Order: sequence, then structure tokens, then C-alpha cells
Amino acid sequence: MNNIKLFIAALLLPLTAAAQTVTSPNGNVSLTFSLTGNGVPTYEMKYKNREVVKPSHLGLELAKDKHASKGLHETSLMDGFTVTSTKTSTFDETWTPVWGQYGKIRNNYNELAVNLTQPSTSRRMTIRFRVYNIGIGLRYEFPQQDSLVYFVIKDEHTQFAMTGDHTAWWLPGDYDTQEQETQESKLSEIRSRFHDAVNWSNSSVAVFSPTGVQTSLQMKTADGLYINIHEAACLDYATMHLNLDDKTMTFESWLTPDATGMKGYMQTPCQTPWRTVAVSDDARDMLGEANSLIYNLNEPCKIKDTSWIHPTKFCGVWWEMIVGKNSWNYTDEFPSIKLGQIDWNKVKPNGRHGANNAEVRKYIDFAAKNGLDEVLVEGWNVGWEDWANHWKEDVFDFVTPYPDFDIKALNDYAHSKGVKLLMHNETSSSTRNYERHLEDALNLMNKYGYDAVKTGYVGDIIPRGDHHYSQAMNNHYQYVVEQAAKHHVMVDAHEATRPTGIGRTWPNYVANESARGGEYEAFGGSYPNHTVILPFTRLQGGPMDYTPGVLETQLKKWSDNTSYVHTTLVGQLALYLVMWGPVQMAADLPENYAKYNDAFQFIKDVAVDWQDSKYIDAEPARYITVARKAKGSDNWFVGGKCDEHGHKVNVKLDFLDAGRTYDCTIYADAKNADYKNNPSAYTITHKKVRRGDVLKMTEAPGGGFAVSLIAK
Amino acid sequence: MNNIKLFIAALLLPLTAAAQTVTSPNGNVSLTFSLTGNGVPTYEMKYKNREVVKPSHLGLELAKDKHASKGLHETSLMDGFTVTSTKTSTFDETWTPVWGQYGKIRNNYNELAVNLTQPSTSRRMTIRFRVYNIGIGLRYEFPQQDSLVYFVIKDEHTQFAMTGDHTAWWLPGDYDTQEQETQESKLSEIRSRFHDAVNWSNSSVAVFSPTGVQTSLQMKTADGLYINIHEAACLDYATMHLNLDDKTMTFESWLTPDATGMKGYMQTPCQTPWRTVAVSDDARDMLGEANSLIYNLNEPCKIKDTSWIHPTKFCGVWWEMIVGKNSWNYTDEFPSIKLGQIDWNKVKPNGRHGANNAEVRKYIDFAAKNGLDEVLVEGWNVGWEDWANHWKEDVFDFVTPYPDFDIKALNDYAHSKGVKLLMHNETSSSTRNYERHLEDALNLMNKYGYDAVKTGYVGDIIPRGDHHYSQAMNNHYQYVVEQAAKHHVMVDAHEATRPTGIGRTWPNYVANESARGGEYEAFGGSYPNHTVILPFTRLQGGPMDYTPGVLETQLKKWSDNTSYVHTTLVGQLALYLVMWGPVQMAADLPENYAKYNDAFQFIKDVAVDWQDSKYIDAEPARYITVARKAKGSDNWFVGGKCDEHGHKVNVKLDFLDAGRTYDCTIYADAKNADYKNNPSAYTITHKKVRRGDVLKMTEAPGGGFAVSLIAK
Repeated sequence: MNNIKLFIAALLLPLTAAAQTVTSPNGNVSLTFSLTGNGVPTYEMKYKNREVVKPSHLGLELAKDKHASKGLHETSLMDGFTVTSTKTSTFDETWTPVWGQYGKIRNNYNELAVNLTQPSTSRRMTIRFRVYNIGIGLRYEFPQQDSLVYFVIKDEHTQFAMTGDHTAWWLPGDYDTQEQETQESKLSEIRSRFHDAVNWSNSSVAVFSPTGVQTSLQMKTADGLYINIHEAACLDYATMHLNLDDKTMTFESWLTPDATGMKGYMQTPCQTPWRTVAVSDDARDMLGEANSLIYNLNEPCKIKDTSWIHPTKFCGVWWEMIVGKNSWNYTDEFPSIKLGQIDWNKVKPNGRHGANNAEVRKYIDFAAKNGLDEVLVEGWNVGWEDWANHWKEDVFDFVTPYPDFDIKALNDYAHSKGVKLLMHNETSSSTRNYERHLEDALNLMNKYGYDAVKTGYVGDIIPRGDHHYSQAMNNHYQYVVEQAAKHHVMVDAHEATRPTGIGRTWPNYVANESARGGEYEAFGGSYPNHTVILPFTRLQGGPMDYTPGVLETQLKKWSDNTSYVHTTLVGQLALYLVMWGPVQMAADLPENYAKYNDAFQFIKDVAVDWQDSKYIDAEPARYITVARKAKGSDNWFVGGKCDEHGHKVNVKLDFLDAGRTYDCTIYADAKNADYKNNPSAYTITHKKVRRGDVLKMTEAPGGGFAVSLIAK
Repeated sequence: MNNIKLFIAALLLPLTAAAQTVTSPNGNVSLTFSLTGNGVPTYEMKYKNREVVKPSHLGLELAKDKHASKGLHETSLMDGFTVTSTKTSTFDETWTPVWGQYGKIRNNYNELAVNLTQPSTSRRMTIRFRVYNIGIGLRYEFPQQDSLVYFVIKDEHTQFAMTGDHTAWWLPGDYDTQEQETQESKLSEIRSRFHDAVNWSNSSVAVFSPTGVQTSLQMKTADGLYINIHEAACLDYATMHLNLDDKTMTFESWLTPDATGMKGYMQTPCQTPWRTVAVSDDARDMLGEANSLIYNLNEPCKIKDTSWIHPTKFCGVWWEMIVGKNSWNYTDEFPSIKLGQIDWNKVKPNGRHGANNAEVRKYIDFAAKNGLDEVLVEGWNVGWEDWANHWKEDVFDFVTPYPDFDIKALNDYAHSKGVKLLMHNETSSSTRNYERHLEDALNLMNKYGYDAVKTGYVGDIIPRGDHHYSQAMNNHYQYVVEQAAKHHVMVDAHEATRPTGIGRTWPNYVANESARGGEYEAFGGSYPNHTVILPFTRLQGGPMDYTPGVLETQLKKWSDNTSYVHTTLVGQLALYLVMWGPVQMAADLPENYAKYNDAFQFIKDVAVDWQDSKYIDAEPARYITVARKAKGSDNWFVGGKCDEHGHKVNVKLDFLDAGRTYDCTIYADAKNADYKNNPSAYTITHKKVRRGDVLKMTEAPGGGFAVSLIAK
């Protein structure tokens, strides 16, 4: 828009429109909308009358690209708006998730829909605000209209103006990876710490700004408010990052571009994802209610029959390759391979191939013996010889096993023991190739009785030039989830975009990685506080397949790997509670579990889907303690995890049923335990407890505790 | 490579390696290879001892991209080579194409394979030359080797140094369209004429250099040599253009990039397509032998059972939409549509939808009555409301008919009359969407008895940022051809990359558009000489679905369209001979054919697949006269077509069987005929002829003639 137009618009419009405020059901959260200056949509947000978000602008900058002349428009949706009408409403509903932290979730909000018109273009746009007790969601909606049919988003300019130099737990904003260590700093320190915060050795790094950070972003104000910014229902839209103006402490949305540099291709009617700000003066609310906020802003379940979606505990042929003892590939004979041009029965095996018949049978036996549901097998299919980091297109076909993996016999054997194999489809980020083979891959799963697939997106995206978190790639991940649903297959996507609660709508999307997973403990380790910040950040949008349960934390005891797990043994048990999710691995080797069979009992016992969750105490990157009631039983499990400083907590068992006795087993760090030097020192205590009893727990540096409470 | 390395390499290498020459079987063409300067591969080419290509460099520039550190290499394959060994060989074979100009094609060449090593990198590369009587093919081959596994091509620098300022018939080099008028100029005039030569109104224009031109490029030297540069077997590689250094008159290969700007992603073992230079002092050889050169450089047929691939004459619901009388879309009710969100039975029809049951039945009746094999129906499937030029991803599903197109009933009706429907899959260049639906689309074709599909790629490519002629898109077109072959479906791809003889290997790839098609006669028209240059250029690599046979050339006689076809009526008949190919449309409306039923007889009679072809006279962009013997019969057909100046030719019938009488029907322009003012003036003469008789033909401005010779 040129200056003349701006001037005319300024004459036509009132300088500010009357502000309108809507409050949350309990009155704690309030949101005020107004038009400021030249018709710029603006909002501010308060919590218990304390400013959380200062007046912040809302709008989208549209691209002036060559398609503008073909019906795609140029004028941005930033200013020049008038309010046509507003509408307030109230919603209160309790719904039943297929899996998660809670058996029921209440979705209760007051809504303000602001219908805007841009007189200079005749365009209409609605900004919808939902105000919850835990925070707000807002999104842009674009009704079908002749004056706005197709448009290209150059940038979304949704601001979040902070009130001060808060403490933040942040990851460097990146278009392709989330596998970073969380940084804790003041907002003003992000710029100076940015470069060193990047995990430059990751196979795909694409940072974009020295003050760019990822969501969900957890913050804490000097006066004790916890604030979390994220998004919900990111569908057919690019993943949002945040870019900080560190003079004004104002964040602005920063979308992931595609290969053209553009950030969104839109056709009305359509809308953006919800932008969310959760707030509380109690950190525990960030773990429970804030997560429900994300799910509440997603659409209800679209899968009619969800009976085939089930919580899953699994072990697998995986950790032995991560640690470096065995290999995914079958041969080392060739500099590279081309599918269909190799007679696999004639190549020379390297003798280290993990996914062989004997090894898989060992895991099947182990799973059957210990009540684990499934066995993941990575490296079962041809193509691993040169799978990563070559931008190779035809890298896997997803249906051809290596000669030492008898897919039929192994599945038959597993089924005879009441166990399923868990499919693995690493795509090497070659998404066109995966889509070409997807139907065959899913048919193969159906044929042999797989009902879950772990997908992977290591390396740079094909189509080349695109990014992991762009609109097109988000569309790809969603396509895979929907195709898998047709085949009754659950999806656990690694290296895909971070979740935004889509698991409510598509509950077969049971897990993601989308962060620095447990595997990094074999790559030099993660900070001991890693798993007491992830629930505040990465888990806001949905569960993580973190791969806990590595009880032999000193890898050198069974391999040449000199890394060690940065938790105590008991700390690993606690992760099944703290890092909630319906799909949980018992990641260690059977022979390691044999060494710690008494502690392994907790992994066998613990539930992975929950009727209720009670956060007992929590502080970001310090400690989390949570009690959860297993779905479909009266048993409770309690877990606590802390950072490198240790933690003490009194767990008052006031959530138990009154008048009932529970068999209580307490897995605790021994007195001298320490994640670094003495990780395997633990105690196991059995006793009877009742409602109101108190467990006084002491967690070692990098440690935790785990408790099972079996109702009698 | 830095200067120090260059200096060392210069010390180590001889300044020039001994040249090696190989000649064609008849000795007319010779090729000399040498290493010049700092080990730069160099070739030159002669024809009857006249220089055709002056010493020209060969080599590839590799990308220094971030993948270089991950095993992709940086050093270019341009210089520093030594010759390890050379190998010469001779090949002579006659093969049988599934369709084409000839029943048999002789593939006879002398070959020189030059095995090169780059000592500074230990890399090996082979340059293979094949020398034919009609010209040469050369390609780069990269054996599997530890020192060259993956590499990214920044540019291919294959030079073609011309000997002078030749006349050229050229199209502006463009990454996305070939729908241009051919320009005739001196090489030195390309730059000044370039801008006006671009068809800027095309839906995708991406020119790259003011001296960039497309292949096949036809030239003529001042002393009467005809030279044609093209490529063969362009598979999993970007389409080649040519960029002219108009000081030295040296062309250099210019590949089509993808969205990253890179031009090829290679994994050894692999090779480039063949780069071809055809040469003769007889223009007729450019139309026959040069075309066979392209096919000879492709691999033999990979489809075992080709019985389902058949020559096809078809009519269709198409021209009435092109001209603007009817529409592809069913409704005008919405600014845009989203598939799956519209109840098509409830929308308001626009009343102009061409692909309706009654109209299609009319065409089926017409095809059955006149011996046409198939009926193309465009606009049968939902999505046409906003299909083009919005970079819309989910534009068609390829399986859902509009409510007024009863797909089962219409196919049943067609089959009951011995006719098939011809499928249409416009993709709107949304290739991810097409690949997602391709299997369903092909299953639909199998279900209802379609055995051919016309595909389309109008508009900018999705994945966004990619180009129509990149490696990835060429890979897409080939993927569609191979998937279609599995379903026994023939493919006629419009707006796809220009053909390079792949129809030999995959004969179900029966046609392409890939040039300015007959439809442009309804968009203002094409030059009268358009169809007497295309056989020299566009048809080198394979047939074109040009859509000839528009007998009512004045569109205003039946529509509001003021364009007119820039040929006479008889000129349209000649196109079935001049624009050879196994798939030919009778493009006009049944009611127009009814008006010229006597002339239409030729379209009914003419074959579309050939046992033999004899070019009688030819000059680029001036005239072409050809006699062809129908495959499987003793009948001959002769056609002549000329530019706006008219042409006279004596056709000596010395190709007929001796001692045999033929029923000869001659369709000729009337004396006062003219493409512009009097296109419908024609004569039809019947007589008996025998071998040796001479037909004295006069072609009107923009006219031609057509002759059928039915053996008795």
C-alpha cells in the first residue's frame, strides 16, 4: 500500500475503535481487543489484573508475487481495518480423549469474534479469541469472498509484547530441527547466547534469526508468573516460530517458508492455527491445564471407530544401533546402493546387522515374557547402506526386507506369543519417495499385522529446498496420518514438525519425537534437567516418544560408547510419568534389564494412559512431581524427576480412594546416588498405604523416584 | 580448484593428449577427441570434411553446497583429466519400433569410449561418443567409485562451437514452457529479438538468458549444411537448453534448475543423457534419419507385452471449450471450490458444461460412425471451477465425475459401439496431488475400460519453486509413464518436458504436446509455417499431439471467437502426414465435419502408424512433402504442407509397388485458395495411378495437399 492510499485510509477511518474486553469463565484472564492507529487490530491480555501481553498488533503481510496478477492479491492484511461487528459467546463442554493425561477434559471458554473489513479492498477477516482460565487462543479466519480468494502469506505478524525481561527456556528457532538443548536465559540474553545454542552437528540446521526461538516457549516473570506461547491445530499451514525484538521484548510470529521463501498458500474459506498464550502463577498449571488448552483448540476426533488405537509399551532393536554396537545396514560392500539393482542374497553381510531373525526373536521373547505390547525393529528393510544426508531420492521402498529378516515368520512368531511388531519407515526426508510407496507400505503392515509405524525424517527435505516445518511438509505429515488411519495404523513420527494437539482430531497420531530424544544420551548426553523442561515446552502439543527406561546408564559397560545417560537409573523410571504419552518404549537391551530385574518391574507395571493426573510440584527445568491414575483401573503411579541439584518432595497421597489400602512400591535413589558417578544406586521399598499418607522422597542429582500404588 | 593446484596439475599433465578420431560407418561424419590445455576434454566434428562443430569443451561444474561436507564433492569435472584408456567399437542392429515413422530402424554407429581420470581427485569419468552417418551422440558416464559417490551438478558445460553465424529456427530458452512461435534469424540476431519472441502471456514463463534457446535447435549454414542439436534419453536428469556466446557463436548446455537453483543430483554409477548433433546437406535427412538418431540412442523397449499399445485416432469434447463455446467447469457459482466440500448435485450448473452425457454420446456416435478409435472428454471430473494459475494444491481428485457425466453409462455406451473413451487428467502442475491420486486414477481407468490418458501440466509447478523441465519433474513424468504401463494405459502428456526418444523404451508414452499446439489457432493463431518447422525441431524427440483436422478454419462461423486457423482446409489434412505420430485427433466438431464430409473422408482413411516414410522435399519453415506407407497394409498416403508463400512439388510415385494399380484420391487447394481469405476452397480428384506416375501438386499460401493411395 503506498503513502497516498495510507493517507486516504487514515481520513476515512477513526483513529481508534472502541476497545472490547472478554474475560475467562473464572475471571482470572482477560483479553481486550481494539483497533489502533490506522485500523490495526490490537489485543492485550491480563491475568489477575496483571499485564501478561501488552498491546500487540495482529495481521498478515501478503506476498507481491507473480501470481498476484492472476487473482492472488498484493495488499496486506495489516491495517486499514474497520470493525463490522463483534460477537461474544460462551462454550462449556466436557469431552473424552482417546488417550492422554486425563480421562475427561473440560473445554470452557468465553469467545470474542471480531469481524473486520478493509474498506480499501472490500476484504473481510475475522479474528477469533477464546479466553480460558488458563490463557487465550486467537486465530485469523478468512471467509469465502470475491475480494479474497487466493493469497500468499509473506509473513504473519502476530505480536506477543512481553512486559519485561523474563526468564525463558528456549530453543534456537530453526526451520528443520528441534533437536537442541534447551537454553535458560533472560530474553535480553538470547542474542548473545544464540550461536552456541545451535546444535550445528545436526543433519539439518536452518536457523533464521539471532533472536528466533521455537514454540512452545516457556517463560517466567520476575514476579512469578509462568507464561507459555505455542500454537494449536497447525494444519495446512507453516509451523510458527517466534522472533524477539529484544529492545521492546516483543515477540512476533515467524513462519517456516518453503523453497520459494513464501510462507503460506491460502484459499478462502480458511483460517490460521490458533496462537496460544497460557499463563498462571502456579507452574503446575503449565503441565496440565495448558496442555488441555492446546487440545481444546483442536477439532473433535474425526475417526469414528477408535477401538484399534491403543496404548503401547514396546521394546526394540534400536538402542544397540544407536549406541553403535550393531548397524541398521546389512552390508558395507558398496560406496552406495540403488534399490532394485542389488541381489541381496549375494552381497557380503557386514556381520553387525541388528535386525536379524535371531535378534528379533530374542526381543519378541523378551516382550512376551514381560508384558510389552510390541517390538520395534529398525533396519529391517533394504536401503540403509547410504540412507542419510545425501539428498537421495529413491532411498527406501518400505517393503523389501533384508535377507536375514523373515518378515512373515517373525510376525507369525510374535503373534503366537501375543506380541506385535512395530513397523519402522525411515524416509530420509525423501517425502515424494515415501508418498509414492505409502500405500504399498501400509498394505504390507496390514498384511503382516503391524498396527503402528514409527516414521522418520532425518536430513534435508526432498522436494529439495523445502523445510521440515513448512506448510507443504506439515501437509505431508498429516497426509501420512490420514492414510494410516484408513489402514488402522498408529503413527509415531520422528523429526516431523512439533505437535499442536492434532492427536485430539486424529488420535492415531499417537506420538512424535520433534525434540532432542533419549538417543542423545548415546551422542554425548543431554543436560540432567532436559526432561524437567520438555514437559513445559515440547509436550504442550502432544506426547513425545522419548525412549526412556535405559537402566544401564553407563554405556561403556556393554559397548565401546563412552557416553553415559545423564540421569540415575531411578530417574529413568520416573520418565514414564513425567514424559507422559500413550506410546512408551522400554529402550534398553534385554540383557541390561536382566541385570536390574527388580527395577525393571516398575516398567512392566506402569500404565501409559491415564484417567487422571495430579501435579504435586513443578518448576521449569528444576523438578516435576506427578501422580497419575491408570485408565481402566484404580491404580496410581507417582513419579518425580529433578535436575542436577537433586530435590526433596513430600507426596501426600490425598488423591487415593478413601478407606482403601494400596500396595505401594517405592523406587528411590539411594542416599549416595548421583547421575554421573553412582547412577545405579537405588532402593526398592514395599509397604501398604492409605489416603492421606505422606511419602517423603529425596531425589539424587539427576535422579528422581517412581511409585506404584496398586489398589487392593 | 585454486591456482596452486592448477599450477601443479599443469606440471604433471601433458599440455595436450594425442587426438583420436572416429568416423561414421559411411565415412561422412568424423569426430575427434583430445585433451587440451590443462586436461580439458575437447571434441570437434566434421561432415564430408567440412567443420560442423569446432573444438568444443566438455565438462561439468559441481556445486559447492552444504552437502559437500557430507560426502557430496566440490571439485568440478572440468579439467585436470588424463586419458586412462580409449576403446572403439562398432554396432549394427536393426530393431522394430512399436510405432513411428518406420517399421524397422537401423542402429549403426562407430563408438569411441574415452576413459578419463582426474589425478588430483582420483575420480574416473567416461565420455562416450557414437558416430552415425547422420551425426553424433555423446554422453558423460560416471562409474561407481569411492572417490565419486554423490554429486550435485551446478552446470553442465558441454559446448557446441558453431563455425559461423548460421540461420537458426529457435524458441526462447525457458524452464517452463515451449509454447512459443519459432523464430527464424541469424545466431547474431537472437539477442536483439529475444524479448519479443517470448510468449509472455503463457501461464508459466521462465526465461533465463537473452541468448538462451531450446532444443531441438535446427540451423542452416550459409553453405547449405543443416545442423540440429538436441538430446536423447533424458531420464532422471534436467532438460537441456542451449546458451549462445554470440561473440564466438558457441553454444553451451544450460540445464533446468530445481527450486534450489541446482541442476542435478547424481549418484554413481550414472550417466547424462546423450547430447546429439545431426548434420546433412539434405534437409530431408533432418526429418527422417535425425529422428531415428534420437531413438537409436535410447534403450530398447522395457515393456514385454506391447500388444495393448495401439495407434489411435480420436475425436473429443475439447475444441468447443478451447474456442470458448462451452466450458470445462460445471458451475460459476463460487469464487473458488474445495474438493469434498461441495454437493455437486445441489450446485447451480452454468449451462455451458461441455462434458455432459448428451454431448459425449454425440461424439461417441460420431466416432463409431467414422471409424475413430476413441473419444477424449475434457472437463468430466470435478475441480475445473478454479483449476488454473492459483498454485492450488488439491485441485483435482481424478476420479469424481460431474453430475452430468455418467462415467459408467458413457463407457458402456462407447464400448457397445466399438469405441473407447480417452481419459483426461489435467494436473494443473500440482504434481504431488497427482501422484497421491495416480493409483486411484489408473484403477478408475482400468475399471471403466480407458486405455489412454491425456495428462496436462498447465501453470506453475507444485512443489512450488520447481520447474517443468527439472530433473525432479522429468522424474515425475517418467513415474507416471511407468505406473501407467503397469495398468496398460498409454500416456499423452501435455505441457510436460519435450520428448527425447523415450518412446522407444516406454512405447506407452505415445505422445506429448510440449510445443505450441493447434489450440493456439483459437488464441489468435500461429504462423502459417508453424507446422513446417515443428517436424525439424519439436518432433525430433517424438510425436506431438498437435490436434489437427480443424476443417472449419474460420471459427466465427460457429462461435464468437474471431481467431482463425492459419492454414487452408486442405492444409489441415496434410498435418496427419507431416506431423507424424501414432495418436492423432480429429479436432473439429462433428457438425463441422458434416459440412465438409468429402474432405473428412481423408481423415477417416489416413493411417497414423507407418511401415515406411519417404521425404520427397523439405526445407525448414518453408515446406515438407512426405509419403508414408501404412503399417500392416500396402496403402500409401502423401502429404505436403507449406508456409504462407505456397509451394509446388512434383510427387513421383516411385515408391509404389511395381505392376500394381492404386486408387488415388487427391485433396488439393483450389486455385484461388488462401489460408486467410479463402481457406475452404479445395478440390478432390479420384484417379488410378501406378508406380512412376507423377502428381504435380500446387499448395496455396498456408496450404498443402493430401493424397491417399489405396492398393488394389
